[in-house]
Amino acid sequence: MSAALQRGLFVGRFQPFHRGHLRAIEAVRAARPAERLIIGIGSAQESYTIQNPFTAGERFDMIDRGLVEAGIEGVSIVPLPDVNQHALWVPYVEGMLPAFERVYTNNPLTRGLFEDAGYTVEGTEMYEREKWVGVGVRAALARGEPMDPYLTPAVARFVESIGGAARMKLLSRTAETGRGPGG
Amino acid sequence: MSAALQRGLFVGRFQPFHRGHLRAIEAVRAARPAERLIIGIGSAQESYTIQNPFTAGERFDMIDRGLVEAGIEGVSIVPLPDVNQHALWVPYVEGMLPAFERVYTNNPLTRGLFEDAGYTVEGTEMYEREKWVGVGVRAALARGEPMDPYLTPAVARFVESIGGAARMKLLSRTAETGRGPGG
Amino acid sequence: MSAALQRGLFVGRFQPFHRGHLRAIEAVRAARPAERLIIGIGSAQESYTIQNPFTAGERFDMIDRGLVEAGIEGVSIVPLPDVNQHALWVPYVEGMLPAFERVYTNNPLTRGLFEDAGYTVEGTEMYEREKWVGVGVRAALARGEPMDPYLTPAVARFVESIGGAARMKLLSRTAETGRGPGG
Amino acid sequence: MSAALQRGLFVGRFQPFHRGHLRAIEAVRAARPAERLIIGIGSAQESYTIQNPFTAGERFDMIDRGLVEAGIEGVSIVPLPDVNQHALWVPYVEGMLPAFERVYTNNPLTRGLFEDAGYTVEGTEMYEREKWVGVGVRAALARGEPMDPYLTPAVARFVESIGGAARMKLLSRTAETGRGPGG
Amino acid sequence: MSAALQRGLFVGRFQPFHRGHLRAIEAVRAARPAERLIIGIGSAQESYTIQNPFTAGERFDMIDRGLVEAGIEGVSIVPLPDVNQHALWVPYVEGMLPAFERVYTNNPLTRGLFEDAGYTVEGTEMYEREKWVGVGVRAALARGEPMDPYLTPAVARFVESIGGAARMKLLSRTAETGRGPGG
Amino acid sequence: MSAALQRGLFVGRFQPFHRGHLRAIEAVRAARPAERLIIGIGSAQESYTIQNPFTAGERFDMIDRGLVEAGIEGVSIVPLPDVNQHALWVPYVEGMLPAFERVYTNNPLTRGLFEDAGYTVEGTEMYEREKWVGVGVRAALARGEPMDPYLTPAVARFVESIGGAARMKLLSRTAETGRGPGG
Repeated sequence: MSAALQRGLFVGRFQPFHRGHLRAIEAVRAARPAERLIIGIGSAQESYTIQNPFTAGERFDMIDRGLVEAGIEGVSIVPLPDVNQHALWVPYVEGMLPAFERVYTNNPLTRGLFEDAGYTVEGTEMYEREKWVGVGVRAALARGEPMDPYLTPAVARFVESIGGAARMKLLSRTAETGRGPGG
Repeated sequence: MSAALQRGLFVGRFQPFHRGHLRAIEAVRAARPAERLIIGIGSAQESYTIQNPFTAGERFDMIDRGLVEAGIEGVSIVPLPDVNQHALWVPYVEGMLPAFERVYTNNPLTRGLFEDAGYTVEGTEMYEREKWVGVGVRAALARGEPMDPYLTPAVARFVESIGGAARMKLLSRTAETGRGPGG
Repeated sequence: MSAALQRGLFVGRFQPFHRGHLRAIEAVRAARPAERLIIGIGSAQESYTIQNPFTAGERFDMIDRGLVEAGIEGVSIVPLPDVNQHALWVPYVEGMLPAFERVYTNNPLTRGLFEDAGYTVEGTEMYEREKWVGVGVRAALARGEPMDPYLTPAVARFVESIGGAARMKLLSRTAETGRGPGG
Repeated sequence: MSAALQRGLFVGRFQPFHRGHLRAIEAVRAARPAERLIIGIGSAQESYTIQNPFTAGERFDMIDRGLVEAGIEGVSIVPLPDVNQHALWVPYVEGMLPAFERVYTNNPLTRGLFEDAGYTVEGTEMYEREKWVGVGVRAALARGEPMDPYLTPAVARFVESIGGAARMKLLSRTAETGRGPGG
Repeated sequence: MSAALQRGLFVGRFQPFHRGHLRAIEAVRAARPAERLIIGIGSAQESYTIQNPFTAGERFDMIDRGLVEAGIEGVSIVPLPDVNQHALWVPYVEGMLPAFERVYTNNPLTRGLFEDAGYTVEGTEMYEREKWVGVGVRAALARGEPMDPYLTPAVARFVESIGGAARMKLLSRTAETGRGPGG
Repeated sequence: MSAALQRGLFVGRFQPFHRGHLRAIEAVRAARPAERLIIGIGSAQESYTIQNPFTAGERFDMIDRGLVEAGIEGVSIVPLPDVNQHALWVPYVEGMLPAFERVYTNNPLTRGLFEDAGYTVEGTEMYEREKWVGVGVRAALARGEPMDPYLTPAVARFVESIGGAARMKLLSRTAETGRGPGG
């Protein structure tokens, strides 16, 4: 090992980036201020579906704006597409990212795969989980509810600027047909 | 722009190509006789599933025979495979097709993506939708019913020549296992 | 044709390789001792899902150990990934395997595709199907039940050595979230 | 077989669509006026390289304009991407196109693969080959020469409208570095 | 547009990250201190070849260490794999990154594609280009020369820690055979 | 580890399977008779090129016939396609094969990647290398020379039965154009 950089990888889908995500990142930073943090945007290739309405670039933009607003610097944001074979996902991520020692995730499969590969894995704190879980935020967005309970102001403004509520409504209608574009 | 060709893109899956599709194409032609029409076969890579029993080539054959039978000429037929990322589908289609100005579709996601990219999008007329929607035609085919209410004679003969009813029955049995070939 | 080798292809997913699979292979060998047998591991790219918990390599290992234990030699084991287009699966398999004349499968779609391509297809005998069907074996594994009714000793020891029961439990929890790694 | 449609497939890359291509198509049409002709745009995924400067869509546009100019109707134009495995290319094409009996190509590999699959293959006439071969046309375009000896007026206007000469110059400079975008 | 963030994208392959790259980044930062900078690692999927010896992760590590050493903060580093179709590369990048207005590159194809898509593109300053061009640095590394003229201390230590010189020698031998692993 | 099976992986492209390959396999078997041997067919997706004229299936057939002829049993033959990222090739192979401890290869990159992953790697003996290297055998085949100096009788008969010499001649002509099918 050439030098003493410590790095952590925080994995999520961020559909969208909500207040719970931000608090969890703040908690990680507070616990290990010297650790360089990489935020991995999972399922980066997904967009325009009920489960994954926003592109990786839009999610990157939300996280970037949310961190600027919260005064958090020194965090890298990296889109991580799924790979065809689950068993290759950890080697794929290792090939795309600098060496890291610690993984933050609440997804049991992600945890299992990284633990099998020898990493230390920690859960992230879940603040008011009943409110801030992604599926609930997306449902509220589709219903046209105010986003303030879920999103910080900078993120809410960004979601509004790209027509997030209209897109979620559109995707709700599309889900009934169960088809993609061209389908 | 080098010349005044106007082109329209009519998108569907055509599983199978039924009377409702033909009427919608006739309506488009009648409304804009000078427009060059491209029929895009969506989800072209799909076949041998309950939702998509026929290959793109078989669907191409059905459309081609149906148009010949109806005396419609000057229409291009193009298979359009899905792409891995919905957000890339419109740029992908633009890279495969000549410039077009107008899109005909009833799929809300297809409409949304093309509108976001600046295209004019029109719905297609739905004739006796309760009868001619694809899922109903496929169910009737699986039950071995006569195809005359759904398909024009040339298309019905073609579907019969490739054993369409037997294939739909086979796929119904396979759907219970939820597996592809090799699965 | 350059020589009189006869070959058969036995297709399955082997999630996991259970006593029913072994008996079916023994029956095929008894019926045609001179036939060279290829065991194709279907959906080889799949792993770490409820339907497909084990990698192709782990399934290969199970089959290899099971055949050694049963004293069966002269069988080739080959992982066969799915391909994007069902209609291309048979040509894909033909391009990866030596010429074969006969296919053993109980999957109706696999049977249909190979028959359409001109192969002789035979079903495999189903011994105590209610006990040995894969989905039941996986459920028992997830519940931590003894594997002896389902797996031969060598296979059971291998599944235990790789923590098969813990993995099935993990995948059950993950299935609730409906997401892959990074999801 | 359900009906007596005869179809031929004319394969080329059309980088760009030049006078030699048009004459070859006219010869095919004259020889078999009743045959429905499909023009397959090979290596459809390629663009922005020295060998393949134009996208499939731009090539489609050239062919379409050239045929309108020449008064040729009833020809389908279809982009055909390469597939990863040469041995799967013919089955791939068969899955994307309606049944055809005859192939027109001067590429020996294309000829060999289709002949091995049982098709009748004919070479296309080569008019003034020393002038109209694609590589020469592209070199002339990169040098900024007049396109009239190579391209019909409608195609030349289209190539000019998309800045074809500037693109070829750009690609010549890029070829020295041997890298794609991002490279 | 929801807020006044300005972003620039600096594209390179960084095989390896050398003093010339660092100076160019410093110049960009000096010229526009308020611009948020994204460093895109091009051809991210490539590694273990003569042209691309290092994985995206290793290149990420080099850049990260070089920026820490130089006291540059607030820069995002993102791996950007090639896509199969050059014409889709800009839309692909747009889908993976937050909105940006300016691109820094010396690659003429990258410049051309981004300009065609409406971006402002600037070349990066080339410091002592004869010394710091990537191919020269890789050749010196393969010959086992000291890296100090080419790499900053932190990057040189990292390259040494992963056995960079031995890998370049290995790849030189492999290049003679012209084959990848398994080849 | 659940049991004491020892396995070795012998990697090659086998274009075609020649006397040198057979001798090397015999030497490996003689040195470690108890080791279960897996023969991995590298670049399995390649075919119909000058470097890789034969499909993986044809190469599988050659090896299978050559081993039967030589009385060698208990060897598994497995096609191994290349993967898009060299750094993922070893994890990919690990996911497709049962656990193995030893690798046999003369390819320096293959050796390096497996050694970096902790495997024992051995070179294979090279018998009369000037005669039996693959490129020389392919050239002799293209010239229509007798195959006896290069191939064992069973392999030579198989290559003749599939028209190997004609194919190599065809591919020599195609190589001049530098294009694949559709190109």
